[in-house]
Amino acid sequence: MPTPVFLPVGSQATVKTVTPDELKDIGFKMILANTYHLYLRPGIDIIKKLGGLHRFMSWDGAMLTDSGGFQVFSLARLSRVNDDGVTFRSHIDGSEHLITPELCIRLQEEMGADVIMVLDQCPPVQDSIEKVSEATGRTHRWAERCLKAHTRADQHLFGIVQGGFSAELRHASARYLTSLDFPGYAIGGLSLGETKSLTYNMIDETVPLLPADKPRYLMGVGAPDDILNSVSRGIDIFDSVLPTRVARNGGFFTRAGRQNIRNSMWKEIEQPVDPDCSCYTCRNFSAAYVHHLFRCEELLAYRLMTLHKLTFIQDLLKNIRQSILDDTFASFRDGFLSGYRATDEQLRISQKQKWLNTWNRTED
Amino acid sequence: MPTPVFLPVGSQATVKTVTPDELKDIGFKMILANTYHLYLRPGIDIIKKLGGLHRFMSWDGAMLTDSGGFQVFSLARLSRVNDDGVTFRSHIDGSEHLITPELCIRLQEEMGADVIMVLDQCPPVQDSIEKVSEATGRTHRWAERCLKAHTRADQHLFGIVQGGFSAELRHASARYLTSLDFPGYAIGGLSLGETKSLTYNMIDETVPLLPADKPRYLMGVGAPDDILNSVSRGIDIFDSVLPTRVARNGGFFTRAGRQNIRNSMWKEIEQPVDPDCSCYTCRNFSAAYVHHLFRCEELLAYRLMTLHKLTFIQDLLKNIRQSILDDTFASFRDGFLSGYRATDEQLRISQKQKWLNTWNRTED
Repeated sequence: MPTPVFLPVGSQATVKTVTPDELKDIGFKMILANTYHLYLRPGIDIIKKLGGLHRFMSWDGAMLTDSGGFQVFSLARLSRVNDDGVTFRSHIDGSEHLITPELCIRLQEEMGADVIMVLDQCPPVQDSIEKVSEATGRTHRWAERCLKAHTRADQHLFGIVQGGFSAELRHASARYLTSLDFPGYAIGGLSLGETKSLTYNMIDETVPLLPADKPRYLMGVGAPDDILNSVSRGIDIFDSVLPTRVARNGGFFTRAGRQNIRNSMWKEIEQPVDPDCSCYTCRNFSAAYVHHLFRCEELLAYRLMTLHKLTFIQDLLKNIRQSILDDTFASFRDGFLSGYRATDEQLRISQKQKWLNTWNRTED
Repeated sequence: MPTPVFLPVGSQATVKTVTPDELKDIGFKMILANTYHLYLRPGIDIIKKLGGLHRFMSWDGAMLTDSGGFQVFSLARLSRVNDDGVTFRSHIDGSEHLITPELCIRLQEEMGADVIMVLDQCPPVQDSIEKVSEATGRTHRWAERCLKAHTRADQHLFGIVQGGFSAELRHASARYLTSLDFPGYAIGGLSLGETKSLTYNMIDETVPLLPADKPRYLMGVGAPDDILNSVSRGIDIFDSVLPTRVARNGGFFTRAGRQNIRNSMWKEIEQPVDPDCSCYTCRNFSAAYVHHLFRCEELLAYRLMTLHKLTFIQDLLKNIRQSILDDTFASFRDGFLSGYRATDEQLRISQKQKWLNTWNRTED
């Protein structure tokens, strides 16, 4: 698969509002689903009984399952962690569960994604260096156990580098994990409400220690400027809920930066949301119509906007891939970024925190 | 257009959750939109400016606009009616508006549907015979004014027979309206929470007085048994929100009667929702998957179920039309009804009342 690539997120075995056919039409070849959500509902037994996750959700492209580590620590309630594993209460019904590295791998083997992830401990941004160090050590021991537990040769098990915002811990984590020889490496624990410069700095500290011939996956990052700046730094795989979050407020990315379709400036605009876009929405509807659907909170609004947002991000990645082949990536990136007004950092961080604190979020 | 025909409802210029392409793929050739909703939001001026309603919602098939009479009396707040027109407050923002028969026609001419409806006064089920008689007389005077105000020769203006549950008033209404010579006639004011036998009785009292060579439209009726029993009585056109209501409870019609996809019996069913159905949902997904999406309240659930429900009703109408051509309608109807368990009448009536009392309903 040509990289860099962006994976739409389908936590609950559905990329919100859209069908597998629509994802394929836009050009996506790989998506992400989430072990935590699917373990709780409908349960892995049912997915297995129904022929695995690809068949369950009718997706015949490639698929990656996240281990659920991030969700257990950020979404579940009352998680308790020790070296054995992590005990948590479901955010849905409060039931108690214990996930060990071995169980995490078994669940992912039963679902049958093409790429699966190790169980990791993702510490919150505000944790002390001691806590982060402890979590990173545990992540390493779990990674080793995951590797041992993994039996399906047709699945690629990726390691996850942690280490918080310490360059030293990031170095140690990258070194330890690469010594275990995974077929691919993710960088976890970033884009959790820290500044962008800190995110980029941690990527810079990590990527050079990861093998050049194996895919590098930056988890949970998907804003256009972050993707461009991370591709520059050697990242191959991205995922994010940004294009598929069912944002009732109507926000979306454009080449100029963030816009909002609910804004009354769109009320009478006969042109599509983006006249240069070739998505179903922009080919068939005026911006005024999409604005109307948002104002009415019609469900078609979220679907039409999701199609547009996914097309925007897919087009961005397509252009990045082409510019790399043409050896013009740096000028493409600089051209894009010069016209792009990034979201205000304070606003972005406060929105991220608000989202991380949402109990019933189901999007990653 | 071959009849009988069922019109999906797109009150706010969108048939909930689905695109125009999907409606066409299922086989629909005509849909309904609502003057009341569109007058309040986005406003008829905007629709006119954007090229009319067909273009606004990207629907190139046939279209009917309801006059808004039913909504003004059932959905708007504090409506006051006199012979001039009806004054009401918007259910969205409380703003006050006066709709006259002349304005109602002008708005529908500006939107440009193929079939438009007269402004009528639809009295509640519980009204006294005196009140119903007064409302019916006013409906007749308004119908005449609508006819005079109507200027667009390319639009068909239908009259609406009212008269509550009085055979005498229904007769009078049918006679008066047919004397005005409309190109088609609707029967309004039924299926508002009365018993089915009363509905059928009122249809029987009305249809014989309507010309056989013009279409007869039974407004707001769409349950499978009601459609079959009304086709028997001479009805050609139906509309209903039943297949497109975004029912979070997961109800849907089958040949055997009403079912519910949230029921745990579907939890592990690998077969489609209806193994005999050829809709997108049934071709691509197991009932267990649709059940899962409903349990998670994923938006794709409502879309997949709407596609299935619309296909079910379209297939029913297709079979009815074919059986009429084959001269086997009576046996088709009896065969269908013998296997069909109608919804319990008391439950149906209480659900209808509950729905009529919902302020923020937007579906008709």
